[in-house]
Amino acid sequence: MSSFGTIFRVTTYGESHCKSVGCIVDGCPPNLELTEADVQPQLTRRRPGQSKLSTPRNEKDQVEIQSGTENGLTLGSPIGMLIKNEDHRPKDYSETDLYPRPSHADWTYIQKYGTKSSSGGGRSSARETIGRVAAGAIAEKILYKANKVEIVAFVSSIGAVGMDRNPLDEKFQKILNTVTREEIDATGPIRCPDPSVQDAMVKEIEKYRDSKDSIGGVVTCVVRNCPIGLGEPCFDKLEAKLAHAMLSLPATKGFEFGSGFLGTQIPGSKHNDPFYFDEESQRLRTKTNNSGGVQGGISNGENIYFSVAFKSAATISQEQPTSTYDGKDGVLAARGRHDPSVTPRAVPIVEAMTALVLVDQLLIQKARDAGRLIVSA
Amino acid sequence: MSSFGTIFRVTTYGESHCKSVGCIVDGCPPNLELTEADVQPQLTRRRPGQSKLSTPRNEKDQVEIQSGTENGLTLGSPIGMLIKNEDHRPKDYSETDLYPRPSHADWTYIQKYGTKSSSGGGRSSARETIGRVAAGAIAEKILYKANKVEIVAFVSSIGAVGMDRNPLDEKFQKILNTVTREEIDATGPIRCPDPSVQDAMVKEIEKYRDSKDSIGGVVTCVVRNCPIGLGEPCFDKLEAKLAHAMLSLPATKGFEFGSGFLGTQIPGSKHNDPFYFDEESQRLRTKTNNSGGVQGGISNGENIYFSVAFKSAATISQEQPTSTYDGKDGVLAARGRHDPSVTPRAVPIVEAMTALVLVDQLLIQKARDAGRLIVSA
Amino acid sequence: MSSFGTIFRVTTYGESHCKSVGCIVDGCPPNLELTEADVQPQLTRRRPGQSKLSTPRNEKDQVEIQSGTENGLTLGSPIGMLIKNEDHRPKDYSETDLYPRPSHADWTYIQKYGTKSSSGGGRSSARETIGRVAAGAIAEKILYKANKVEIVAFVSSIGAVGMDRNPLDEKFQKILNTVTREEIDATGPIRCPDPSVQDAMVKEIEKYRDSKDSIGGVVTCVVRNCPIGLGEPCFDKLEAKLAHAMLSLPATKGFEFGSGFLGTQIPGSKHNDPFYFDEESQRLRTKTNNSGGVQGGISNGENIYFSVAFKSAATISQEQPTSTYDGKDGVLAARGRHDPSVTPRAVPIVEAMTALVLVDQLLIQKARDAGRLIVSA
Amino acid sequence: MSSFGTIFRVTTYGESHCKSVGCIVDGCPPNLELTEADVQPQLTRRRPGQSKLSTPRNEKDQVEIQSGTENGLTLGSPIGMLIKNEDHRPKDYSETDLYPRPSHADWTYIQKYGTKSSSGGGRSSARETIGRVAAGAIAEKILYKANKVEIVAFVSSIGAVGMDRNPLDEKFQKILNTVTREEIDATGPIRCPDPSVQDAMVKEIEKYRDSKDSIGGVVTCVVRNCPIGLGEPCFDKLEAKLAHAMLSLPATKGFEFGSGFLGTQIPGSKHNDPFYFDEESQRLRTKTNNSGGVQGGISNGENIYFSVAFKSAATISQEQPTSTYDGKDGVLAARGRHDPSVTPRAVPIVEAMTALVLVDQLLIQKARDAGRLIVSA
Repeated sequence: MSSFGTIFRVTTYGESHCKSVGCIVDGCPPNLELTEADVQPQLTRRRPGQSKLSTPRNEKDQVEIQSGTENGLTLGSPIGMLIKNEDHRPKDYSETDLYPRPSHADWTYIQKYGTKSSSGGGRSSARETIGRVAAGAIAEKILYKANKVEIVAFVSSIGAVGMDRNPLDEKFQKILNTVTREEIDATGPIRCPDPSVQDAMVKEIEKYRDSKDSIGGVVTCVVRNCPIGLGEPCFDKLEAKLAHAMLSLPATKGFEFGSGFLGTQIPGSKHNDPFYFDEESQRLRTKTNNSGGVQGGISNGENIYFSVAFKSAATISQEQPTSTYDGKDGVLAARGRHDPSVTPRAVPIVEAMTALVLVDQLLIQKARDAGRLIVSA
Repeated sequence: MSSFGTIFRVTTYGESHCKSVGCIVDGCPPNLELTEADVQPQLTRRRPGQSKLSTPRNEKDQVEIQSGTENGLTLGSPIGMLIKNEDHRPKDYSETDLYPRPSHADWTYIQKYGTKSSSGGGRSSARETIGRVAAGAIAEKILYKANKVEIVAFVSSIGAVGMDRNPLDEKFQKILNTVTREEIDATGPIRCPDPSVQDAMVKEIEKYRDSKDSIGGVVTCVVRNCPIGLGEPCFDKLEAKLAHAMLSLPATKGFEFGSGFLGTQIPGSKHNDPFYFDEESQRLRTKTNNSGGVQGGISNGENIYFSVAFKSAATISQEQPTSTYDGKDGVLAARGRHDPSVTPRAVPIVEAMTALVLVDQLLIQKARDAGRLIVSA
Repeated sequence: MSSFGTIFRVTTYGESHCKSVGCIVDGCPPNLELTEADVQPQLTRRRPGQSKLSTPRNEKDQVEIQSGTENGLTLGSPIGMLIKNEDHRPKDYSETDLYPRPSHADWTYIQKYGTKSSSGGGRSSARETIGRVAAGAIAEKILYKANKVEIVAFVSSIGAVGMDRNPLDEKFQKILNTVTREEIDATGPIRCPDPSVQDAMVKEIEKYRDSKDSIGGVVTCVVRNCPIGLGEPCFDKLEAKLAHAMLSLPATKGFEFGSGFLGTQIPGSKHNDPFYFDEESQRLRTKTNNSGGVQGGISNGENIYFSVAFKSAATISQEQPTSTYDGKDGVLAARGRHDPSVTPRAVPIVEAMTALVLVDQLLIQKARDAGRLIVSA
Repeated sequence: MSSFGTIFRVTTYGESHCKSVGCIVDGCPPNLELTEADVQPQLTRRRPGQSKLSTPRNEKDQVEIQSGTENGLTLGSPIGMLIKNEDHRPKDYSETDLYPRPSHADWTYIQKYGTKSSSGGGRSSARETIGRVAAGAIAEKILYKANKVEIVAFVSSIGAVGMDRNPLDEKFQKILNTVTREEIDATGPIRCPDPSVQDAMVKEIEKYRDSKDSIGGVVTCVVRNCPIGLGEPCFDKLEAKLAHAMLSLPATKGFEFGSGFLGTQIPGSKHNDPFYFDEESQRLRTKTNNSGGVQGGISNGENIYFSVAFKSAATISQEQPTSTYDGKDGVLAARGRHDPSVTPRAVPIVEAMTALVLVDQLLIQKARDAGRLIVSA
């Protein structure tokens, strides 16, 4: 379905060639300062066409708030947001009417729905993420007000080139502790905060661009100042909600948090995060953070960090031998220029989904806190 | 919360030292043959104490069906299932009252709840998974009846030792195509189908057992004969639901499906799965399966396969310098023998959660199919 | 929250003085013929200003489909619908800034949200129901295609004047069996199908209009050709879902189905609906229908009928002694002309909510049917 | 489905002739004092066989807490509760295998499920409500701790005999203001607090008992000290949730709150509840309470009161001409003694469902309150 969240819930609509895409944000607290200017920056970061590394289309993607605010403040009622599609005519006939594009959603959609939109993938289009990003921008404002929560995502690898994500690596932990969005954006389109690999990553993308191919990458995200106690035991562990959110993004192939897959190789005696009393915060903290800020499904106040694998883009500018819908062998012709790596553009989308998970869990935990208070009164 | 699923929903209860653990399975179709004998085998596979590689406790874990069946057939009403805890007295005073165990849920639970069960982690205990496994056994029966769906999980690595999970590796794909639970169980406690790495994996576990340490591992799971069309676009993609399910299991650190993290390094031209017409099934299939059986969030009829990272067990038999709840530095004493690797025991739990995701998505898709039929009538 | 439904789900947004109101309809089957022309008629029936009995404002309420259709057919993706507000400037200062209007939502909203929209009630405004009516029009199309389901609501009483709703009354049952929307609309603004009380009901409204007062009424709704088996035992009985839907409408005070409150006075021997074999449908039917088409929470194929109480409108054109927000006694001044009875306008809204309940339960039941088929295969 | 609630959620299981009935209560705050002694009283009040007015069976219905508590305090984890069925063998062959009982769920269940439990109605049995009552007892404890919330239900009419429920009637409002459970129980099995009608109501039941018939009635419920602000605009209005809860109870035919159906006849000028400043509570209150404690879907701090119609019991001790499942006309034989009015036994069940609605809405509102605090910080 197209809804996400329990107490703070976003519902999205829209595909590539309809009138508009957008969302309804339900459960936003009242009296929050909110205008289009709060939402636009992340939408703009999400836009394609921002550099020679990405696709040259230049969609405008200006958000228009429809409801839920008055005089620049939220009312507590649902916030409707709408972003017009520049070209909302159904597309003309094209070869994608003959061929299901390999590793796209064309074939599975037609199996599921018995129809397909003229733009092929319909809701699997990356434009579907616009509503998520708009909603995430609101979620971020609340999280920051609640506890100065900071969410920063960045590209940690492109193809085989990238940063060391070993949780015990000091440089990696330092980046997690300090990196800002401004620093990320200052790195240009590659959006990687590690200068020692930036150039190689750009070259990796250029290599595949020049060979009319594409290449994947990994986006890493850190959450600082997450309140303690978010997440529910059993099915709604915080990492489970994050995993759900991330794997719901187009083109994702994996999710790992804290030590991740590498953590399976670190023995318990080293993997366990010992506690110590922290004078500054006057509470227990952990010396290491292999847990990634979550223990038993519940946030422990350390940095939450996780990585998301994005596959090499399925749309490439070279010919592909494949089959028509009718089962006839053929060659899907080379088409125009395409984004050789969608990974950098995923950065604000990962941030948005992270914010949507956290704000919902934060409000749920406030209900839990209140329940405790009631009982202890 | 403790519920999972929309149309087929399991709700679980229980922790280590209460009277019983169990679940309610809601939405099971009527007239399914079901007795305790259908549920017990996976519970038995889940039990500890089955080999020298795992913890020597021998819990009985006999399931008792409370409701929802009559004369060996389901009624369509909720199926209550109960598994008695052998020792259901609250535990005596112990050092875990002084120390939050590192990388356990002790500290986060006490932060969230202001209390903790005598057994420490409460719902974060592995006993919580019993209800899931019981429910999963029912889900599997339905899936098999629906389309001969087969779900087989196995250990693909222990620590740094393991199988090649490259999606383009022929041997790996062959195992995914053919491996059975019987073959897995025949490999003994290691539950790895690849003879070339089994011994090394056992040795890896023994090495950490002997050093009073623990080591993690990866469980890989394959689903064969999954119906086409399961999963919903946007937030409820099939891989998102699977990721949610897997990361809700205790001790998990990551999830990847199809090509996974390695897929970020395979260029699009090789990563794309070309279509061909398959004479046997009289439909399009894909020549490769880097997509892992899911495209655009929707199953495409190829094998669904994914891997789950399990961290090294947090409970180890050696001393650990850490802090007391009160913030005093100290050493958490070595305790009795513990399971040096929980990964092999996770196999039936991964299968159960997979079945719970699929049966719910299957029934939802049946509603979608019916909607199509209605409209086209 | 602002979402309703599980498999077919509507989410609404909008209040009186924002840019637009609307909804997202998620889970609509693909390939349904759908244009604005399918949705507009019920929106037009909902509009105020259609007669001298109702408020003279003439809102245009033209729906614009944003997404989810192409070339006049649904795609299976969410259908965004938008209806512009004619006057979307926040309102000027008014006495409603000083006084919480009695029996309006002004005071409870300000308690809950700490703010209020310039139009007072915000989401409690009747304009909120526009999104529901738009979504309901789609639901109706599906229900009709599924089983020629007919949903017809009408005004059965105004104040103390109205039809006999005794379930054993032949005339009442005949109306339930035969009444059409066309007939209802042909009765003019009163929307009551019983000629013997129409004039008296009109006079009742005029009486209260002339005394600058308002009067309530009852809307009765019948569903014909509802498929057998809709509704789930326990918490999601069909009547429970309908009750939820109806009491979620503004100004409602009660719900009864089948024999309703009167049914508490009919002894079991008369209230029980005996079965007989019906040659035409070749199945069991019931001779009477005190059950209102639902037994044990599940539809039995007889007419579903129920009634909804709408209170006298809280906005009246006479002075009201009350208190300011600040707690000062005062008199809320008489204001312009207001609708003396909102009940007739509720007719299409009741139909819409009925359709939304039924289409969701229909699709859920299709999943249940499929589960049975799977098991019996 | 068998779950109810969002943040505080109960899931029930069990039918008449299975091993046990029970529930899982998820989301209960930790550190609440809770033993079986807190739950048993309402279960005992629900039991049949307590007087000559009700059925002579004497079920024991002793609750056993399975999980979620330790040393008499809740842990925050799910509370499993189980009540053994005294006779849990499937029933022998009986005429109900030939005849669908009129106005029971037998026929609709067999249509929906293609099977039926030996006890006929399966989940439609009144035993299903045991789990609700057990869960409600916990909810009540929390509500009382939160705000000394009091929930008292009583029988307001049997057949045509009963109290005046006019919202403007002083005696009725006085009863709502003061009645206690102790007073209700002191009235014996009739459970009606109005001495002027008690005897007539008892006689009404006896009349139908003696004629081997049954008669329905109305249960009225009042909630005192409900916190202000509970309920959400639009679909989840407080009255909508209550209506859903009440109509989910077996044998219910209607729900009205505040002025109810009679309120449709009271003109707006009298129906509106004027505000005044109350010195004691130092806030606005309303002089009348036709609104029933809810305005715009949100509680306003006045008494919440509503009434629920219970039909005449479908099981009667006289012969009924009807049809067999096979469509043959016949007479369903007279059977043993049956409860001539189930209405008095519904009293604790109505209280339980009320508590379940309110505690969930209370905790949700705590999340909303926290959101406001965050934003205003």
